[in-house]
Amino acid sequence: MIRHTVVFTLKHAQGSEAERKFLEDALVLTRIPTVEKFERLKQVSPKNDYAFGFSMEFADQAAYDAYNTHPIHVDFVRDRWQTEVSKFMEIDYILL
Amino acid sequence: MIRHTVVFTLKHAQGSEAERKFLEDALVLTRIPTVEKFERLKQVSPKNDYAFGFSMEFADQAAYDAYNTHPIHVDFVRDRWQTEVSKFMEIDYILL
Repeated sequence: MIRHTVVFTLKHAQGSEAERKFLEDALVLTRIPTVEKFERLKQVSPKNDYAFGFSMEFADQAAYDAYNTHPIHVDFVRDRWQTEVSKFMEIDYILL
Repeated sequence: MIRHTVVFTLKHAQGSEAERKFLEDALVLTRIPTVEKFERLKQVSPKNDYAFGFSMEFADQAAYDAYNTHPIHVDFVRDRWQTEVSKFMEIDYILL
């Protein structure tokens, strides 16, 4: 299992319709067959300044690769992520 | 539910006995009654330079507060975390 997470901040104003729409439209990623346990998260620690997170799990590296190259993901990154996200960091985990 | 995560890097050499011992001894945190779903994680994304992570869940803020002030946590932070961790970031999530 590989858990892929990304913590991020949007360019949109907090509580805006554009923010709501981005978070809603991100659910399109769950249509990618290898995506498991997709979660949309609100980042609540005052010790960093990110606002949101996504978390998902893949069975193995092949499933992760299939996500990365899937047209739904490629389109979402190009059309939404690159234009609406101001700052992000990817963190991927495997269980020790 | 609040998911508390911390991504971190140790001062110890990769694969060293000191590294193994730190990760083993961190299991003491699972003795704190409000800690749920404690996970020790290896950070595997090449897009950041952290090496490990811990993840745990709390039922609510009171459970999180009880963890923060619990002597087992306070001692672990003072005796191990502050001396053996070189870099870390805390990220906390709630489900959207």
